[in-house]
Amino acid sequence: MVEREGGPRPGGRSARVQASVHRATRDLLARMDRTAVTIPLIAAEAGVTPSTIYRRWGELNELLADVAVERLRPDMVPVETGHGRGDLLAWAEQYAEEMSSDLGREMIRDVLAAEGAAGPRRCCSYARQQIALIAERAAARGEAFPSLDAVLDGVIAPILFRILFDEALGNARVGELVERVFEGDRRGDDP
Amino acid sequence: MVEREGGPRPGGRSARVQASVHRATRDLLARMDRTAVTIPLIAAEAGVTPSTIYRRWGELNELLADVAVERLRPDMVPVETGHGRGDLLAWAEQYAEEMSSDLGREMIRDVLAAEGAAGPRRCCSYARQQIALIAERAAARGEAFPSLDAVLDGVIAPILFRILFDEALGNARVGELVERVFEGDRRGDDP
Repeated sequence: MVEREGGPRPGGRSARVQASVHRATRDLLARMDRTAVTIPLIAAEAGVTPSTIYRRWGELNELLADVAVERLRPDMVPVETGHGRGDLLAWAEQYAEEMSSDLGREMIRDVLAAEGAAGPRRCCSYARQQIALIAERAAARGEAFPSLDAVLDGVIAPILFRILFDEALGNARVGELVERVFEGDRRGDDP
Repeated sequence: MVEREGGPRPGGRSARVQASVHRATRDLLARMDRTAVTIPLIAAEAGVTPSTIYRRWGELNELLADVAVERLRPDMVPVETGHGRGDLLAWAEQYAEEMSSDLGREMIRDVLAAEGAAGPRRCCSYARQQIALIAERAAARGEAFPSLDAVLDGVIAPILFRILFDEALGNARVGELVERVFEGDRRGDDP
């Protein structure tokens, strides 16, 4: 099952403050250059005091990372195509497309700009959860499916690596990578 | 051959200014917290005016990225083990170790924090050049060797992805990834 990690108790005061500050941050980012966005501006937009934000997030980079991680949280279950390979291909193509968009790149950048590994790890865990869902559905149909690590290293890693350090991969190459992890899995089953 | 990219004409005034500013930045980063490092401090340390730095690098993030990219430039040819697979394994293990060190992580972070794709692409091209050297040596011995893209996606991508978003891979997993790209290559040669 998709586990909800991090974040305060839903509906509590703390959750309402967080939701309001996140919304204010997203609204400001949508209508002004990010270099112009400041904590006092966000506080005014959210109707909280700046010290509320400083107390909770420490600095702007941390808040921007938190907002980006939240946006990267999957809001739908992976498309069902009837078999695991098709599900993984559809998911990977959509992931590659979203992450290589301007908004996707900005979110990855914000996540990586904050101190500490918590934000990036949450992003990785979101991807893991989506792949695990696809794998569970495949297992329920009695299909072979590659290991989570094989999918992380063989499909997700190259998608993100190319976006960050090179040129985003097109669908043809994403398809090859998905084929590759299935071939590896089959070989592993039947050496 | 390893191509020297970017940077001014060696020995010229501009090259001397760059070398001096880079050295000053590295020295300051080594002896104080990076949040305390500023352009005026670097200028004083390098014996140039702050405006020289602003004119050339624009802002601190860009200078830090430039220094990090320069540090990531390989300063040795890949170790020779007598065969391509061993060369790639030795190179990948060393790369994974260096990049996952505190200094390595800081450099990757600085490179990704700057505006634009130039810095990250230079890092990617350094890795490409090293792999190309290993591949050339393998070809000269008549050995099969995987494509550059297969090595980038299958070895380098997971190493960096795990450092940035998860936990650094150990040597055992790096070894598996190297085996994987050779298996893929063999399968490609002989379907």
